[in-house]
Formats: sequence, C-alpha cells, structure tokens
Amino acid sequence: MGCLDDGRFAVEIENGVSNGCGKVGFGNDGGAIEEAVKVLLEGLGEDVNREGLRKTPLRVAKALSEGTRGYRQKVKDIVQGALFPEAGLDNRVGHAGGAGGLVIVRDLDLFSYCESCLLPFQVKCHVGYVPSGERVVGLSKLSRVADVFAKRLQEPQRLADEMCSALHQGIKPAGVAIVLQCTHIHFPDIESVFLDSNHEGWVKILVSSGSGDFENKSADVWNDFFSLLKFRGINMDKIQFRGSSDPCWCPSQSSLSAKVSSKIGPVNPTMISAVASIIESLGEDPLRNELIGTPSRFVKWLMNFQNSKFDVKLNGFLRGGIDALNVNEEINLNKKITSELNIPFWSQCEHHLLPFHGVVHIGYLMSDGFNPLGKSLLQSIVHFYGFKLQVQERLTRQIAETISPLLGGDVIVVVEASHTCMISRGIEKFGSSTATIAVLGRFSTDPSARASFLQSIPSPTSTGEQ
Amino acid sequence: MGCLDDGRFAVEIENGVSNGCGKVGFGNDGGAIEEAVKVLLEGLGEDVNREGLRKTPLRVAKALSEGTRGYRQKVKDIVQGALFPEAGLDNRVGHAGGAGGLVIVRDLDLFSYCESCLLPFQVKCHVGYVPSGERVVGLSKLSRVADVFAKRLQEPQRLADEMCSALHQGIKPAGVAIVLQCTHIHFPDIESVFLDSNHEGWVKILVSSGSGDFENKSADVWNDFFSLLKFRGINMDKIQFRGSSDPCWCPSQSSLSAKVSSKIGPVNPTMISAVASIIESLGEDPLRNELIGTPSRFVKWLMNFQNSKFDVKLNGFLRGGIDALNVNEEINLNKKITSELNIPFWSQCEHHLLPFHGVVHIGYLMSDGFNPLGKSLLQSIVHFYGFKLQVQERLTRQIAETISPLLGGDVIVVVEASHTCMISRGIEKFGSSTATIAVLGRFSTDPSARASFLQSIPSPTSTGEQ
Repeated sequence: MGCLDDGRFAVEIENGVSNGCGKVGFGNDGGAIEEAVKVLLEGLGEDVNREGLRKTPLRVAKALSEGTRGYRQKVKDIVQGALFPEAGLDNRVGHAGGAGGLVIVRDLDLFSYCESCLLPFQVKCHVGYVPSGERVVGLSKLSRVADVFAKRLQEPQRLADEMCSALHQGIKPAGVAIVLQCTHIHFPDIESVFLDSNHEGWVKILVSSGSGDFENKSADVWNDFFSLLKFRGINMDKIQFRGSSDPCWCPSQSSLSAKVSSKIGPVNPTMISAVASIIESLGEDPLRNELIGTPSRFVKWLMNFQNSKFDVKLNGFLRGGIDALNVNEEINLNKKITSELNIPFWSQCEHHLLPFHGVVHIGYLMSDGFNPLGKSLLQSIVHFYGFKLQVQERLTRQIAETISPLLGGDVIVVVEASHTCMISRGIEKFGSSTATIAVLGRFSTDPSARASFLQSIPSPTSTGEQ
Repeated sequence: MGCLDDGRFAVEIENGVSNGCGKVGFGNDGGAIEEAVKVLLEGLGEDVNREGLRKTPLRVAKALSEGTRGYRQKVKDIVQGALFPEAGLDNRVGHAGGAGGLVIVRDLDLFSYCESCLLPFQVKCHVGYVPSGERVVGLSKLSRVADVFAKRLQEPQRLADEMCSALHQGIKPAGVAIVLQCTHIHFPDIESVFLDSNHEGWVKILVSSGSGDFENKSADVWNDFFSLLKFRGINMDKIQFRGSSDPCWCPSQSSLSAKVSSKIGPVNPTMISAVASIIESLGEDPLRNELIGTPSRFVKWLMNFQNSKFDVKLNGFLRGGIDALNVNEEINLNKKITSELNIPFWSQCEHHLLPFHGVVHIGYLMSDGFNPLGKSLLQSIVHFYGFKLQVQERLTRQIAETISPLLGGDVIVVVEASHTCMISRGIEKFGSSTATIAVLGRFSTDPSARASFLQSIPSPTSTGEQ
C-alpha cells in the first residue's frame, strides 16, 4: 500500500491535527503544563520560588507550545496559493520545469522533540520532488511543511514519512523524497559518566522516505537526489527507509541506559504523572504505544540533575586535594601556564529545563612538572557542577572557585557550550555557541597570561553536525 | 561622548521606535506597499495579472513587514524579566559569574535590509558582555535584542552601534561588545556582466562596537573576546569600529556601479516615488540622509530585470549556433559527456522580488574534440535567462531548451542556487540551497550518463560565509 492510501494525511490537511485524542494544541492547558513543571522541580529538590526558577514553569510551557506548534498548523493553509503554473518541455524528449524537472531544497535546519524522551533533536532536512501537471510549489513551502511535522513529538522515520506523505498530498507531484540527518544528544548517566571517559555525545541517524517516483528505494531518481546532496563517502545501504523496523534510536532506550538508570531506583510516580499530563496538554495521547514509557524515561533522565545528591562525594575528593596544596604551595616562584583543554560536560539549563553541553578549558600557573590535580579529578569536579540545574555563568564560576585553592589561586576557566534553548523555541539559532570565562589571581590582572591561554584553545570540533 | 549619553536609545527602549516620522510599522499601510509593488512590476514591463506575479505585491508586503518588524519591537519588553541574580566571586581576586565573568554568544545568523539599496544582507553576529551588579541576562535575549535592530533598514556600523547601546541600556553591565560579519550580495550590472567574467559575488565587511569596558578598542578585554571568536588570521586592524567613517559598503554606491548604471538612462520617476512610499510605509523617513538616494538606486538595480530588452541580442547569437549544428550533427556516433561547470548566474525571484543566484552546470554528449558552443556563449545564455523576474525551475528549463538544439539534443542542466527569500522573511533557513535539473534526450533515459555527470559536479563553494 502506497503512502497515498493512508487516509490519515487527507484528514490532516483538512484539520491540521492527526492525534487520537482530538485536542488542538494546549490552548488553555498552558496552566496545566506550568503546574506539572512545578511538580518536577519539587521532585528534583529545588525551591520553585528561587529567582532563577520562579518563571521556569512559564518558560517551559511557552517553549513547548512553540516547539509543538505543528499540532495546530494545517498543511493545506501553507500550500494553497503557492502552487504556480510552470511549463514543462516543449515537444522534446526529457524532463524539465513543471513536468518532471527534479527540484531539491537542501540543508534545512529544523528541530523536533523525541517522543521517547521529550528532548529536542536536531534535523538537517533535504526535500526533493518531481513536479507534474505543469505546476511547481513555492520553494519556501517545502521548508514550512517540513516544519509542521518537525514541531511535534517525533521519531525520525515517522517524521520523514509524514513530511513525505503530506507534501505528496499537498502538491500532487510525480514523487516526493525526504532525507533527514537527525542528531540526538546522548546524555551520559550521572552514575556511568565517571567510568566512561569516551562517552559519545551524540546519536545520529539517517532516514529517508519516498512517494511516487521515489516509492522504490532503488529507483534511479534516488541516485540523482543523492548525487545532488553530495553525500560523498556515505554508504547508501545504511540509510533507513520507509517501513524499516530498526530499534528505537533514542539513547534513553539503549540497553546500557536502561541498566544504569535502574540503579536510580524507583521513580517518583507524582513526577511521572506530571509528565504524562504535559504530553496530554500538548494534544497527544499519552497512551499511544510509543509514548507509554516516555514519562518515566524523561523523569529518570531529569533525576540526573537533582539537587545535592553528590555533594558528599565531592567534598571527600576535595579535602584530600586541599591538604596536598597546603604542603606544596609556592615551592617555586617560576610558574608556567599548565592547561587541561576540552574536558566534556553535560548540564541542564534551569531557565528552560533543556540540555546544554560542551567543553571546559582549565588553565593554571604551576611549577614545572608539578600537577596536584590529575585530569580525572578535574573531570569529576566538572561533572559535579554540570549535573545540576544550572546556568553557564554559574557553572564557570563554581568550577573556578573549587579548583582555585587546589591549584594555587591563579586560575582561568573557559566554558564553551551549545544550548538547546538557543535552537529550539522561537530562537532557532542553529550553530550558535556560548563562551564564558572566569579569571582568578594573576589571570585577572595579567592580559598576556590570559591571551597566552586563550590562544591555546583549539577551534571547536563539530557539535551535532553530520 | 559615550554611547550611553545618546538619549535616543533611552527613548527607544520605552517606545520601540526611533525613526523621525513617528509611525510604528506600516500597520494599515500594507495596502500602500502592494500598490507600490504593482507600479514597480508595471515599470518592468510585466503583466501584474500573470499567475506567478498576481500575489507578488502581497508577498512583498508581507516579507517587508516581517523583515522590518524590529521597528515595532521594544527592547525593554525583551530584556525585562530575563535578568537573573547571579553571584560573583566570593572574596577572591578576579572576575567570574555575575561580577565580571565575560559572556560571549557567537555565530548568531541574522539578516538585515541595506538602507542604501533595500536588498537584504546577511549578518553573522557575535555578542559579548561583562556582567556587573551580580546579575546576568538570559542568553537568548542577546539574540532577540540583536534581531530587533537587524530587522530594520540598516548599515553595518550603525547596526552594531545600535545593538551595543540598546544592550548596554537594557542590561546595565560593565560593558557590551558587538562584532558583525556582514555579507552583501554584489549583483553585476546587466551591461557589465558580459565583460567582467571575474565578478565577485559578495561584498564583505567586519564591524565592531563597544561600550563601557569595551569603549576603547585597544582595551585588553577585546583581546579576550577576539581570542574566543577564534578569528585566526584576521587582521584586527581592518575591523571597522564605532565612529569609523569608511565609505558606504553597499555595492550600489561604488563608483563603477554608478558609472555603469548611468547607461541605463533616466530612471522612471513613478517607480522612484513608489519605492519612496514603501520606505515611508515601513515607518522610516525617506528624507533621512542615508535614504534619499535609496529609491533611485533600488529602481536602477531592479531595471536589470526588465522584460524583453535583450531578446534581440540573444536571438542573433543563437541563429549562428543553430546553423553550425545543422551542418555538423551526428558526424560521429561515439559521443562523450562534455561539461561546463560552475557558470555563475544572478536572478530575481518573481514571487518576492528578492535575489537568487548561484551556478549552472551544463553537460552534453558530443563527439570528442567537437564543441560548437564556447563557454562564453553558454555564459551569455545563462545571463540572458537570469536577468529576468524568474523562478529557478523555469530558468533551468529555458537554458536547457535553448542549448539543446545547439548541442545535439542530449543535454543536462543543473542549477544550484541560494535564495534570499529562504533567509529573509519568516523562513530564515540560513545555509539552505536549492538544486534543479532539466534532462533532455539521452540524459533523460540513461541513468548512468546522468549519474556520471552529476558525480562530476564539485561540492558547492561557500556562498556568503566569511
């Protein structure tokens, strides 16, 4: 059965919403989301009246409303009025223009929400279609329609299939092709992160979907499409296609995550109900098969950021360090800049309950060959402050304040991060990044020491790009 | 006088609009813009009732409204409620967090409208500030405030200065720094493009602005900022700074453009009045010094795309070509794929009156060593179809149809383009690009011939990135 036989999309184009429970967006349910977010913050041991958190429920509700506005949009409204008559070839053998001339829009940056864990994931979207009936669609409509389906709780293959079917229905071309490069953040578990120093920060997947001329994955027109995407060196056989039944890509469902998170122990049922109510407020059915485990996965992940749990452990670490310093301090006045660059961290923005993550660079002045703190202790300190509800400015200061007494007081800390809250919501500043600095002791007074360290920081490696 | 003494921005923060004539956006003036666009289309010799153009006035009015929404936004509304208490260092020498810890947001993609010619230009924006008073601002607000000033008729240095002053006023930090990498499309003139095969498609400029700690361009904190931008190899002395009086960057004001466009002859005064009325509808003062020449510059540029002017010239070319073909066709059945890659073109989207431009790749089957059309004739044909109100699908077909009889009938044409209408308006899909194909004769029936040609197309060179 071809995708066009699926009556669901015809309904979608008319009514804009395809979910089972019949609600259109959350309209007046923003208040319900705010209440649910308060429950989650309390479950994390936070004071919901603390200044940074006071408006977090409102911000989360707004972000979710914006991020799932696709439930309230109609493909028909977007496409109609943007179909233009366009001639094909005049009495010649071949394909061009409005009769068979393949059109491809490449590299549309989108984001979507993972239906399995509720975290946003990034999508680089490539859309193609083969016009027929001597008409073409306005190019920007390909982007707008793709966005309607991205702005929902999604899974990559379904997202591709829905975009494909809706465009086919809306444009009625000879065929539609969708290729999505999806990138999902892979948060390590707070228990495992101290053991797994090579944790990979991203899970990536390539999916595709085709209708009409693109229905068959081995059709020649797919070769044209992929040639123009210039995916040099990518093995086409590894691209997931419509109907593929690969296991869920979301790292929250990987066996390791499941095993480790079981250590966190039984999850607070009030928090799980709160997440289920958020899902329902968005107009989704929390009993839909793919969503049943989502509230508990989201809560398990969120519990990585609960207040205070690891304070005791770190204090143990640090007391040892401080003792060492008292003995060895100032042996040699001829100090040099020592640095540890690219220490990875993961954290959670307290304003939007959205991940941010990146690397920490630490520099300090120390006698040659003398290094009181190993990289692994620095990494532990970074994780300790990362696994909290945070803002990057505070994270930077806290790391600097903690390591300063252990490293002689002349310390510089630079944090470079990508913030999910800058790509999701209304901002959508893909590719932007944030850097923060804390300087203590000589680094605050000696510009040349600062410059020397800052220049040693390498250009960022790709974060999230495929 | 420091930027903070400029009372204008205090007014701006309260009222949202700083222009002289006191209108807030165009509100009900969308109709006036539509009427003006009709005048422009008629001035180009177009039929305003042609299907592709019928809604162009409405689309242009909408795009301008969206693209200049900054006139109707208030910085105060954006920043208030997003200032958070954040501690500085606790009794230590240095700077961190809410007291002196430099914060930088890098690589914000924005676009703005050139006040000198009304074309959109791209902006890669980097914002930094030094918090003081133990408070920080939500990171996304830096992007939102920057966008308020980008979404107006602008000039790069003024844009940087306005962003800087407004952020300083809104956050009250120890200092604000702005660095903008601006890229303006440099359309060749239709008269000069046939002569200048090395025409550079972009004009680029780097500007900066600083307040407080950043007021002095040689302050050490600028070194920290630039180090974190990782502008390796860029000469800092070449970066324009607040108060700089460089000549206008807009290519429409370069002496060459002025000289060449004078050949177009006297510009239609009705069209000039129409553009002035658009500027007024946006809430700007068309008599502001920088805007006085804008209507005539815009119209001169637009006249490159007037209907029909060069048909006669091209027909002359082509008759010669067709004669050559009739004599030589099918001498040798052992044909090979010959190609001309990366032929530049410039065109104008008829749906939004916005530029699109890129490269054309042409392949054909021809006997070895036999090449009836030189690259310069192919380039002329490409320019001929580019310099019109166009859509990319039609441009591709027209080029294919024109060259097919001259090249034996087995022809493939690929057009790769960046569309300004995909970065401006509500789409803002920076980095996206569009590819279209026309295949005639054997290229439409032989997938391996098509694949062989498509694989030979190099990956796109950077378009617009600095």
